[in-house]
Amino acid sequence: MANDIKKVVLAYSGGLDTSVILKWIALTYNCEVVTLTADLGQEEDLDGVDEKALATGATRAYVEDLREEFARDYIFPMMRANAIYEGRYLLGTSIARPLITKRLIEIAHEEGAQAVAHGATGKGNDQVRFELSAMALDPSIKVIAPWREWNFRSRTDLNNFAEQHGIPLPVAASRKLYSMDRNMLHCSFEGGELESPWLEPGPGSYIMAVPVEEAPDEAEYIELEFINGDPVALNGEKLSPAEMVKALNTVGGKHGVGRLDMVENRFVGMKSRGVYETPGGTILHVAHRDLEGICLDRDTMHLRDSMIPKYAECIYNGFWFAPEREAMQKLIDETQKNVSGTVRIKLYKGNVIPVGRKSPYSLYREDLATFEEDDVYDQADAAGFIKLQGLRLLGYKK
Amino acid sequence: MANDIKKVVLAYSGGLDTSVILKWIALTYNCEVVTLTADLGQEEDLDGVDEKALATGATRAYVEDLREEFARDYIFPMMRANAIYEGRYLLGTSIARPLITKRLIEIAHEEGAQAVAHGATGKGNDQVRFELSAMALDPSIKVIAPWREWNFRSRTDLNNFAEQHGIPLPVAASRKLYSMDRNMLHCSFEGGELESPWLEPGPGSYIMAVPVEEAPDEAEYIELEFINGDPVALNGEKLSPAEMVKALNTVGGKHGVGRLDMVENRFVGMKSRGVYETPGGTILHVAHRDLEGICLDRDTMHLRDSMIPKYAECIYNGFWFAPEREAMQKLIDETQKNVSGTVRIKLYKGNVIPVGRKSPYSLYREDLATFEEDDVYDQADAAGFIKLQGLRLLGYKK
Amino acid sequence: MANDIKKVVLAYSGGLDTSVILKWIALTYNCEVVTLTADLGQEEDLDGVDEKALATGATRAYVEDLREEFARDYIFPMMRANAIYEGRYLLGTSIARPLITKRLIEIAHEEGAQAVAHGATGKGNDQVRFELSAMALDPSIKVIAPWREWNFRSRTDLNNFAEQHGIPLPVAASRKLYSMDRNMLHCSFEGGELESPWLEPGPGSYIMAVPVEEAPDEAEYIELEFINGDPVALNGEKLSPAEMVKALNTVGGKHGVGRLDMVENRFVGMKSRGVYETPGGTILHVAHRDLEGICLDRDTMHLRDSMIPKYAECIYNGFWFAPEREAMQKLIDETQKNVSGTVRIKLYKGNVIPVGRKSPYSLYREDLATFEEDDVYDQADAAGFIKLQGLRLLGYKK
Amino acid sequence: MANDIKKVVLAYSGGLDTSVILKWIALTYNCEVVTLTADLGQEEDLDGVDEKALATGATRAYVEDLREEFARDYIFPMMRANAIYEGRYLLGTSIARPLITKRLIEIAHEEGAQAVAHGATGKGNDQVRFELSAMALDPSIKVIAPWREWNFRSRTDLNNFAEQHGIPLPVAASRKLYSMDRNMLHCSFEGGELESPWLEPGPGSYIMAVPVEEAPDEAEYIELEFINGDPVALNGEKLSPAEMVKALNTVGGKHGVGRLDMVENRFVGMKSRGVYETPGGTILHVAHRDLEGICLDRDTMHLRDSMIPKYAECIYNGFWFAPEREAMQKLIDETQKNVSGTVRIKLYKGNVIPVGRKSPYSLYREDLATFEEDDVYDQADAAGFIKLQGLRLLGYKK
Repeated sequence: MANDIKKVVLAYSGGLDTSVILKWIALTYNCEVVTLTADLGQEEDLDGVDEKALATGATRAYVEDLREEFARDYIFPMMRANAIYEGRYLLGTSIARPLITKRLIEIAHEEGAQAVAHGATGKGNDQVRFELSAMALDPSIKVIAPWREWNFRSRTDLNNFAEQHGIPLPVAASRKLYSMDRNMLHCSFEGGELESPWLEPGPGSYIMAVPVEEAPDEAEYIELEFINGDPVALNGEKLSPAEMVKALNTVGGKHGVGRLDMVENRFVGMKSRGVYETPGGTILHVAHRDLEGICLDRDTMHLRDSMIPKYAECIYNGFWFAPEREAMQKLIDETQKNVSGTVRIKLYKGNVIPVGRKSPYSLYREDLATFEEDDVYDQADAAGFIKLQGLRLLGYKK
Repeated sequence: MANDIKKVVLAYSGGLDTSVILKWIALTYNCEVVTLTADLGQEEDLDGVDEKALATGATRAYVEDLREEFARDYIFPMMRANAIYEGRYLLGTSIARPLITKRLIEIAHEEGAQAVAHGATGKGNDQVRFELSAMALDPSIKVIAPWREWNFRSRTDLNNFAEQHGIPLPVAASRKLYSMDRNMLHCSFEGGELESPWLEPGPGSYIMAVPVEEAPDEAEYIELEFINGDPVALNGEKLSPAEMVKALNTVGGKHGVGRLDMVENRFVGMKSRGVYETPGGTILHVAHRDLEGICLDRDTMHLRDSMIPKYAECIYNGFWFAPEREAMQKLIDETQKNVSGTVRIKLYKGNVIPVGRKSPYSLYREDLATFEEDDVYDQADAAGFIKLQGLRLLGYKK
Repeated sequence: MANDIKKVVLAYSGGLDTSVILKWIALTYNCEVVTLTADLGQEEDLDGVDEKALATGATRAYVEDLREEFARDYIFPMMRANAIYEGRYLLGTSIARPLITKRLIEIAHEEGAQAVAHGATGKGNDQVRFELSAMALDPSIKVIAPWREWNFRSRTDLNNFAEQHGIPLPVAASRKLYSMDRNMLHCSFEGGELESPWLEPGPGSYIMAVPVEEAPDEAEYIELEFINGDPVALNGEKLSPAEMVKALNTVGGKHGVGRLDMVENRFVGMKSRGVYETPGGTILHVAHRDLEGICLDRDTMHLRDSMIPKYAECIYNGFWFAPEREAMQKLIDETQKNVSGTVRIKLYKGNVIPVGRKSPYSLYREDLATFEEDDVYDQADAAGFIKLQGLRLLGYKK
Repeated sequence: MANDIKKVVLAYSGGLDTSVILKWIALTYNCEVVTLTADLGQEEDLDGVDEKALATGATRAYVEDLREEFARDYIFPMMRANAIYEGRYLLGTSIARPLITKRLIEIAHEEGAQAVAHGATGKGNDQVRFELSAMALDPSIKVIAPWREWNFRSRTDLNNFAEQHGIPLPVAASRKLYSMDRNMLHCSFEGGELESPWLEPGPGSYIMAVPVEEAPDEAEYIELEFINGDPVALNGEKLSPAEMVKALNTVGGKHGVGRLDMVENRFVGMKSRGVYETPGGTILHVAHRDLEGICLDRDTMHLRDSMIPKYAECIYNGFWFAPEREAMQKLIDETQKNVSGTVRIKLYKGNVIPVGRKSPYSLYREDLATFEEDDVYDQADAAGFIKLQGLRLLGYKK
């Protein structure tokens, strides 16, 4: 197979691992390597990353700002669904992979490449997300997964390869305590002491949000406006999707919001423990669900709720570009057509507390909710309602 | 029908409303009224409530401590299921109704009564919960719902009836701002300014937990031990079910934990806004789910997760004694047989943060989670896994 | 309320019951009555039904052919979903009610009427379907349900009223053995000996299909072509939606297809036993599912399958015009975009046997299905696939 | 790894393929091979199969009658769940694999073997079912899958190997048109002209049931009695589980019952076309669901129905011994505690028509079902029921 591959498009971060991968592919496949470095809001300095790629052997280096597309076409649809994996995880890493893969495949088409490549290991979920996205988008493009292909047995082997090929190792001081993944929506931490689920995460596992103890002693109130399930304005100021996520990260991070420590179940079959920071996403999730409380009909909400685990699994497992995810999105987007309005949120030392919500489409009726008489609701109706609800229970217990 | 009823068992709190109901039933049905006042941990002084009932016309007044039964047979099974309604509400009011009804029916049998009665209004969910429970347990016992039957059009009418019949009205100072319901698991607040979903709940809506701002500036760590999904020890001390809920309320309330402000969908068809305090229950919920992270197999967890909305609806809608709830409980209890272990929780100003978990049944394997080589997991297997996972996607997009 | 109502639009069949209702409404509400008689393919002679309505007191009588709309906008969307209630019932009666109600409401708007009326009894599902449809479409229009309002205690009372008001009773010979409901999609039979679930349905319960014993001794093969989940041609001949249903009824009925005898659970809480004939609908259902076998991706099919019970309940329970049904329809229609192709069906004495299927969108690949080697599928991949699938099972059984 | 394996337990049919496998394993792994030939009701003569195994090189040959265990502990629990895959397939092949694997593992323990082996190919579902069952029961036992391991590229290679090693090839006359799998519950046919989904199955694809055209011209009525969801008597005669399945096969096969032709989705990712015969199982499935119509509460039935796709997937995909299947079984078995009674079935040329059902636990009430007045059901209650059902729809359509 190797000799059919003349050009490869590699997802390249500029770090040690993907630099080694760049070199390894070029040598192993004896082929051109084109790199893609995507700005997904990971807040790293991408200046010079193209020179670095070229210096390491790439024949062309794409550096692209995908932040608006990421927020608009990936994060927001997922947020409209209230997607949450295993009851807790907001899928911050998972949702970035399909977009990167989509660009890899597009560049492969433009460049006439036969393969794409990624730097995900053989034990994690990301390899699956990259490769399933690629298979869905164009199965004729091969996927190279060096972590599963090469015969390095340890990080020492990898470092040795780097030294042999003139790839600079990070200085000791900048070595990371954790395996991290960051984008606009979140930062994840794995490894280190986290591999023992009984140990508390250390102080190095904070990047996007302060520890709750260090958050301000004063609560802050924000107002978040939604249209059709998407946030459009913060405290009255219209913001683009990426601006919105960034602004919510800033205010959420300041108040220590959106931190999660959990053991989750990977698609590849084992459990793993991670710490996640999702400050802006957590505010969005809470505010969106709260607004739905007045805008969504009960049975529509319950139907959608029943779909959340499956929808979230699709994203977690790498099936973003799968027909079942797309079909569910149609249902979800239909439910959002009246989810427009404003939520008032109190932020305080890690808490995200909705304290008010309003909408031109509100289905809440003050007249119905009151304990006094009203015109619409005849309390006598409840008697018939209850009797017929209970009819099926008669005679059951024998 | 009225003249078939010679004795009624009434759920009696000792307050104005159920006192009026007691008198109204006795007069309207020309029958004996027996009262049941249940201690479900509502932290009200029940001394003298029996004299009050007898003075208002009851022929017998039961006052019973049901706290252990409530915690063990109602709260704990529900917590094993991670029951949560509309993604947020821990069902504190809902779960109390079946137990009260069960005792009403049992007393009706002992006393030879033909009916039971409750003080729930015609617009809420509680009437449904009382009446469906009664229909399921013994449909030959009638249910009297005075709020739907009498012709009082307002609270003034009710107060007038009370004065006519010598039932003392609460002094102005003790009049409640809100319609409240409290038991061991939670306290709910409705009415007042809460009827406008845009208004923030006032300071009077705190009973079980302090406002987060008033919680201690120091975090507190607790360790909660579970066996088969039920909490059995706190910080190493074995506690009975009711003691456990109470102890968790104390520590949770101190740290401002478990407050919720939401607009929910009632079973009777309208939306309503409530504020809920569930300090101990919130700690339990979070800790239980966290322990499941290491004890539950992935697909078992996802299956159970898919059942939570339906299970929670059963409780919310009053179908506790329904065969579908009982069937789901069998499934859920089966999943809990290995959910034993300890969770370490940090409490701080409203936050409930699991920071460690361990179990003799843990399915987490440190050797599998590491990034280094291991004996069980061959990274090459991932390639085959992904290829077959993606096979169904080939050829789809046309 | 009665005196607000000056004009009522009544769903009128021309039979005894709705004639009595027409007269009863006019007298009781002292109002105008406008009738709607809809041709939904019930194969009754509607000539003269307008004169009959006018003679009984109607001020205007609409007679409308709704067959194409019924097939295209109600039956076909439901068939795209493979809707089936309690595993067996194809919802033939249920699906007709929303369309009739829609026309009643439209005519009420045109005529300036304040209410619509139907002839469904107080024990069945149809009252719910009429009234929920009306509430969804325009809650300001009242619904009159004479069967729940009048004080006739028996059929004798009703007959007496008819005689008093000059409404002719059917002659004894034409009295029906069963309570029947018929439209283009099906005919239902209830009552008579069917009220005892142990008794076999009698020979009078056949209208649309012959008894299987009387069907031809020769099998007949048909080819049914679908586009986007809808049937468009039979044996190569393009047919309109209503023509299609009718043609399939003819061929299905000839071969004794589509008969069902079951005890079902009504929405109003009791069980009832019915016999249903759905000859064309049964062929459609079987052929559609068979075509999906080659056109639908596995996970999309399984997702859709998980939705069938809920979708069918919506229709059965009268929630056609409800937002959750509309949201599900979006999902379902998205799944159907590639469900185009042809199914070959063998009909023989009640059997509907798919024997061949083909599609330009077929996902079936002969090269993958064969036992010999192929290029796409590497059998070694299966080993990795299985190992990772089983990984989560390790260590569980203790 | 190979040299750790000193003894292997092989699932052995006595046919060409497993004889080649026996020899291949002994040579390749240089180990002892013990064979297990299980009688699961496949109606093959197993006399002499042990001699054949020993002659081909086995050191010990187990031949076991597992029919009662198969019917009682595998087929019946699955039938209690109404398990059906993709709406049509009754899982006849799938359900046999866990039992065979369980015996392989048990014998491996008794014999001190290090591995078990099966003859399933690398493209099908059976390899997954064997191997996942083995992983769940004892992951320390290796699984050998020769079809994925050897380097035969075609059936010719395999035949050559057989000839080299003195394994007799079937004479031309007995060569099968199809790849078949048979047990007590069903027979499956794949391959041959079936690989083209448009071609009608040929006359060779009938073993357990006659073609419908050849079935008797007279209908036959049977009565099937169930206790707790399991069939216990046929026409009044008590039968053991295996006798029951066999007797139903006989009568069903005579009437051409239970044949299915479908394209299904394999777990390993591709579509395949099969023909299945399940005469007795089809009768059981239809009769069981019909009895549930009077014995199961509505919401319990709908809950269980929502679980069928997932439960059936578990069996199809090989997760019989998985905790999620076992948890679902608890729920299902709880629903069956009142599913006792008798169903009367008419069999005629492929049709299985329930015509009567009765049960001491019947929830059907003739008094409620009638159109006349009754004591339990007040028609006026329906008005309140409908109004509250529709309340949530008000105000939605904007």
